[in-house]
Amino acid sequence: MGTDCPFCAIGRGDLDADLVAYRASGMFVVPTLKQRPSNLGQVLVCPASHEVLLHRLQAHVRDGLFEVVAQISAAASHAFGAVGTTVLINNRAPDQELDHLHVHVIPRFANDALVIPNVDGAPAPRELRLQLASKLRAELE
Amino acid sequence: MGTDCPFCAIGRGDLDADLVAYRASGMFVVPTLKQRPSNLGQVLVCPASHEVLLHRLQAHVRDGLFEVVAQISAAASHAFGAVGTTVLINNRAPDQELDHLHVHVIPRFANDALVIPNVDGAPAPRELRLQLASKLRAELE
Repeated sequence: MGTDCPFCAIGRGDLDADLVAYRASGMFVVPTLKQRPSNLGQVLVCPASHEVLLHRLQAHVRDGLFEVVAQISAAASHAFGAVGTTVLINNRAPDQELDHLHVHVIPRFANDALVIPNVDGAPAPRELRLQLASKLRAELE
Repeated sequence: MGTDCPFCAIGRGDLDADLVAYRASGMFVVPTLKQRPSNLGQVLVCPASHEVLLHRLQAHVRDGLFEVVAQISAAASHAFGAVGTTVLINNRAPDQELDHLHVHVIPRFANDALVIPNVDGAPAPRELRLQLASKLRAELE
């Protein structure tokens, strides 16, 4: 944990501060590196501290995490025009790349034909991720 | 809500009582109708009451829901030999079939190559679902 974990670095404010759409109650929200064109606005909700397993969270951390997930899920419809969301957590899944706990909130649109995982996706341009963060930030303010 | 919703019927105890692996704090847990052979033990965690949207839940209901999700996620490794879990919530997603809020907890195994959604899956034999419920129930007791 700590020095090599990019989510810890964002949590501390040492990395990607301009990508943070929301920060409160020990949680932060950033657009995912990959963005499906049909589901623009996918974000991660993360504890700032290096938590790993959902079932090891202290109750107040878990409660705070899902409070923010619920807020973001509501905001996605306004910020991105979504009809709903899909929320996904990999909890020590074999194809998981980062162990710092992160909750995906994926905006959903009619006929988006969402398939998980996003195996073909390339990293999105940083400018797009900044725009998405900005839209969500404006909605949450 | 209510009379036509199968999850309300399970919540009331009027349907599939033998499939309920866990019931506490206004929540219940049942194996999903479809079971991927490579991810046996997928369950739904649901509020007994007819809740629809994650961001409309009262805080105490949301907290109770994710407390049970965390418990089930921990139990899946012991009950089913999983290495972890993937947790998924469709929150008014376009491909969602039932509006009563339900949280999928999918056991994960090395090289399971999980793809969501499970478009090719047929309903699992009831006997298999009963066995899975029984394993999880034993772990949680």
